[in-house]
Amino acid sequence: MSGSIVVINPNSNQAVTDGLDAALAPFRLEGAPAIECVTLTEGPFGIESQLHSDQVVLPLARLVEARSDAAAFVIACYSDPGIDACRAISPVPVFGIQESGVLAALARADRIGIVAISDASERRHRLYMRRMGVSARIAGERALNMSVDESARGAGTFDRLLEVGGALIGDGAEALVLGCAGLATHRTRLEAALGLPVIDPTQAAVADALGAVLAARL
Amino acid sequence: MSGSIVVINPNSNQAVTDGLDAALAPFRLEGAPAIECVTLTEGPFGIESQLHSDQVVLPLARLVEARSDAAAFVIACYSDPGIDACRAISPVPVFGIQESGVLAALARADRIGIVAISDASERRHRLYMRRMGVSARIAGERALNMSVDESARGAGTFDRLLEVGGALIGDGAEALVLGCAGLATHRTRLEAALGLPVIDPTQAAVADALGAVLAARL
Amino acid sequence: MSGSIVVINPNSNQAVTDGLDAALAPFRLEGAPAIECVTLTEGPFGIESQLHSDQVVLPLARLVEARSDAAAFVIACYSDPGIDACRAISPVPVFGIQESGVLAALARADRIGIVAISDASERRHRLYMRRMGVSARIAGERALNMSVDESARGAGTFDRLLEVGGALIGDGAEALVLGCAGLATHRTRLEAALGLPVIDPTQAAVADALGAVLAARL
Amino acid sequence: MSGSIVVINPNSNQAVTDGLDAALAPFRLEGAPAIECVTLTEGPFGIESQLHSDQVVLPLARLVEARSDAAAFVIACYSDPGIDACRAISPVPVFGIQESGVLAALARADRIGIVAISDASERRHRLYMRRMGVSARIAGERALNMSVDESARGAGTFDRLLEVGGALIGDGAEALVLGCAGLATHRTRLEAALGLPVIDPTQAAVADALGAVLAARL
Amino acid sequence: MSGSIVVINPNSNQAVTDGLDAALAPFRLEGAPAIECVTLTEGPFGIESQLHSDQVVLPLARLVEARSDAAAFVIACYSDPGIDACRAISPVPVFGIQESGVLAALARADRIGIVAISDASERRHRLYMRRMGVSARIAGERALNMSVDESARGAGTFDRLLEVGGALIGDGAEALVLGCAGLATHRTRLEAALGLPVIDPTQAAVADALGAVLAARL
Amino acid sequence: MSGSIVVINPNSNQAVTDGLDAALAPFRLEGAPAIECVTLTEGPFGIESQLHSDQVVLPLARLVEARSDAAAFVIACYSDPGIDACRAISPVPVFGIQESGVLAALARADRIGIVAISDASERRHRLYMRRMGVSARIAGERALNMSVDESARGAGTFDRLLEVGGALIGDGAEALVLGCAGLATHRTRLEAALGLPVIDPTQAAVADALGAVLAARL
Repeated sequence: MSGSIVVINPNSNQAVTDGLDAALAPFRLEGAPAIECVTLTEGPFGIESQLHSDQVVLPLARLVEARSDAAAFVIACYSDPGIDACRAISPVPVFGIQESGVLAALARADRIGIVAISDASERRHRLYMRRMGVSARIAGERALNMSVDESARGAGTFDRLLEVGGALIGDGAEALVLGCAGLATHRTRLEAALGLPVIDPTQAAVADALGAVLAARL
Repeated sequence: MSGSIVVINPNSNQAVTDGLDAALAPFRLEGAPAIECVTLTEGPFGIESQLHSDQVVLPLARLVEARSDAAAFVIACYSDPGIDACRAISPVPVFGIQESGVLAALARADRIGIVAISDASERRHRLYMRRMGVSARIAGERALNMSVDESARGAGTFDRLLEVGGALIGDGAEALVLGCAGLATHRTRLEAALGLPVIDPTQAAVADALGAVLAARL
Repeated sequence: MSGSIVVINPNSNQAVTDGLDAALAPFRLEGAPAIECVTLTEGPFGIESQLHSDQVVLPLARLVEARSDAAAFVIACYSDPGIDACRAISPVPVFGIQESGVLAALARADRIGIVAISDASERRHRLYMRRMGVSARIAGERALNMSVDESARGAGTFDRLLEVGGALIGDGAEALVLGCAGLATHRTRLEAALGLPVIDPTQAAVADALGAVLAARL
Repeated sequence: MSGSIVVINPNSNQAVTDGLDAALAPFRLEGAPAIECVTLTEGPFGIESQLHSDQVVLPLARLVEARSDAAAFVIACYSDPGIDACRAISPVPVFGIQESGVLAALARADRIGIVAISDASERRHRLYMRRMGVSARIAGERALNMSVDESARGAGTFDRLLEVGGALIGDGAEALVLGCAGLATHRTRLEAALGLPVIDPTQAAVADALGAVLAARL
Repeated sequence: MSGSIVVINPNSNQAVTDGLDAALAPFRLEGAPAIECVTLTEGPFGIESQLHSDQVVLPLARLVEARSDAAAFVIACYSDPGIDACRAISPVPVFGIQESGVLAALARADRIGIVAISDASERRHRLYMRRMGVSARIAGERALNMSVDESARGAGTFDRLLEVGGALIGDGAEALVLGCAGLATHRTRLEAALGLPVIDPTQAAVADALGAVLAARL
Repeated sequence: MSGSIVVINPNSNQAVTDGLDAALAPFRLEGAPAIECVTLTEGPFGIESQLHSDQVVLPLARLVEARSDAAAFVIACYSDPGIDACRAISPVPVFGIQESGVLAALARADRIGIVAISDASERRHRLYMRRMGVSARIAGERALNMSVDESARGAGTFDRLLEVGGALIGDGAEALVLGCAGLATHRTRLEAALGLPVIDPTQAAVADALGAVLAARL
């Protein structure tokens, strides 16, 4: 299996794709499958509503279908849009970053907290985690309430992450998931500052993809 | 973080350690952390009872404490013995293969089945998965009812895996976890034969460890 | 609130819409809101896969948006496609027939069984019911394994319903939900033959819509 | 099926029955089953304790048995007293307003809040909702802490409803159930003021009854 | 606290009360509270339906109120009739034999099975155990399908217990609860024959009562 | 069965054993099995960490094996160390005080609160109660944050118990469990002061043991 891991940014903002690409640099290893980050050009500039999330499903499925050379896919939007459709049509593993991020956190601590970008996504995440059957492990979800764009570059993002992370610790969280594809650069520093595991969900999904592809080499 | 991933076989059977070592070959990559498989010499020859599982906890904890150079640990016995103790004392991530194996399967399918070595461990696994809060996702657990030793080398193992895997599919399983550290060599063939994802738990835990160590490089 | 209840058949098979229309005849009452059955012309001829379900979401949302005169909407496909999107944009209540059908059955009995059209939808329904948080009340789901078309008209449908309903009673079901928009004509006879409540989900959703609209008249 | 829907007020306060009757006016439709509100003359003046709730069970069951002409029954006290007994003896559907109210709210929002009359009933409701298996969907319950009588007529009731409803929104409620048979006149105004669905449970149960009776006409 | 433990047989069959009295002989100890078995003369001859269960609530509450000298009460019918009412009015602990029997079994094994007298009570027990929040621990319930009377004296009872107990073991039960007040004489022999803990619920409730009364002596 | 109930203090602090002995005085009854409190001399002076808890497992198992004359065992440390191992090897019932304490509280109230000695054990208790499958009944856990030693003798202990118990009532607790083997002397006074049932877990486990041993005498 010599295909690459195809990480799809379902919004059409190339800067987000570039950020993903940078965040995944440590996962690019000699001999390991390549990690290719692609932009879903049909996607909206940002996925900030249920409708945005729904409208990328068919283009995502088409992209997955077209990339029959891939060894695995990662859908790099925290709503895991199109996960069911892509899995239904893909012969190779498809990972959603919400699912992988949450599961990675569950391997590090008992109760976990989710740092969302905005309150608007809390309900969507809650329903998804209940569907996953892991609600007993969720200490809480709290939002930065910044736009994706602002959170990705703003100087105040780290301070706000510290504040929201601290509140989640107060809720009982013993590990955190960054509920967005664009916060990876803060992960290591936030983990050190808060003293608990912090999971970047895109890294988690790529680790899952790597695990699946490498396992198949035995 | 230049330490290696230390995979501990908590029984004293060096052949099992050697098997782990071989199964993890695909995860040894240029530039990635080394993967070191060690035998817990104080362990029993096989871990086949609750008491066996309990008696390795302190030696495991001592080994973890001694290896302050490690980047991450994997406890490679499907009972995840000593996971709480090792996590309490280790500054680096500690993964148990049962936990990682189950979580990896949950990233591949909705309901999963566990292939155990013997009926004797079913109750222990059930309590552990209930403690994990993921019982809603478990389709069933069925045992090969072979000794660890026999299962590791016996010619009939693959046929028995097919039979038990098929029964779990009948129970509703959409992915399988091999509930033992010594079945990795059958994974790829079983996956192909049964047509659903099959997870080797040691590989899953090492993928988790790899993910944690690589993420920290950003 | 003088608008009508708009029941949307998300597939483009007008015969299905006509069947819905006929099944809802008893709910058309002097003084009550009108019940209008419309066909989603952009829909596939039948919704039989995850992709079919996903591809109707945007057209459904557009239809809901266009019908700003409606008093309530019913999405009349048992997968409840687009329910989140339609709710997010509609100022009036939106009901999905799976959700309403299951809840109506829960008001009639403790443990309920679902009669699906085909095995292919079982996983989708299971995830949806887990997301609803009502899994403890589900005795089982079993499929007729007929095509939607065949089930809607075939002479053997009633016999197959009897058989599958009987099996669900054996699973512990005390009420049944017909997991399809096109089985309403069998409801009364099946209920009598099996001796337990049988819910047609479109009727259930329309009753919910009627309840919401009438309540607002006080 | 030409019988009427018999709504039983299990307390002996005729003013409460008259209130129910008025609240159900919109559900009286030409051609639909009649809705008859009756007072359980053997009931206490108000049902405010566990014992009150228990003492109406046998009289309720006798009334249900006597009204063999009914098409459906609604037990219009939020404790759903006698629901099991009445269902066991009645050949037609019996709805309890707590059960129907909660289920109606679940068809409108994910997490719901209950507005109780007094703290004394919180435990009873909690046990009933756990028995229903829907606890995952309950955001909270808060009490007006007014007597039934006071709440039914007092000028301050609406203000108190606003206050308690707002607190439940703070708890995460996305829809509210009025946990009492006598608050229907406030429903529409409260819904508008709070901006989320508010369910009157008697209306919800009558809608369920209407749905069951009309479905049987096909 | 010198009062006695009052064990109430809520049916009016004095032979059942005498059986309880005999089964509790080992719990009568020098210095311990007396154990007094009383018959609820207003009760039906046997409690075999929901209505029977409901009709004893008020007489039970009156008896509890009258016996203000008691140190604790045990309601010795496996439906735990009137448990909420009696607790609401009694200043001393009230135990129901279903609740105590189930909890005692949970202290002996992970998954437990219930031996019911008849299928008719299965639904009632299931709802009660779900209300208790312990459903995850229930392997199954199966009925002898004998009358209370027959089961209490019939020669075939033990053989039927063996058969039903064996089936529950097949369902995964690791301990059994005898779901009836009149099977105590079979307990020890059944436990020996099946090789797992068997709980007589009246003995379990009396042990709970004894524990509560003795604890208060410190 | 004439053996005694052997209560094992798994720490090596004889003062703790003496305290247990005193707390169990009311359970010593003429004709009942003797209650023998023994100190695990190999244990640490106090069990205050995961490692402490793990290190007593093997010595506990050996002690249980050696005392083949016992009628039942009670492991008198609130972490229930070694409960699985001891049960696996003992032919007689083994009770853990956490399990028995929680179950005893569940027989007295719906939602219960746990008074822990220190925050450090909260996670361990939470995982254990989730494994027990009773999380739906837990209102909360709060810690005294005193050392075991200090809590056992300090003058301020009762005031701190009142304060923490009051906070748990605020969390919704309707009964309390003292989450430590050394607080029994405060039980009766605390119960009176707070007005709700307070369970000493060692007394609860001994009551369970008494129940099991006496039941076997019939």
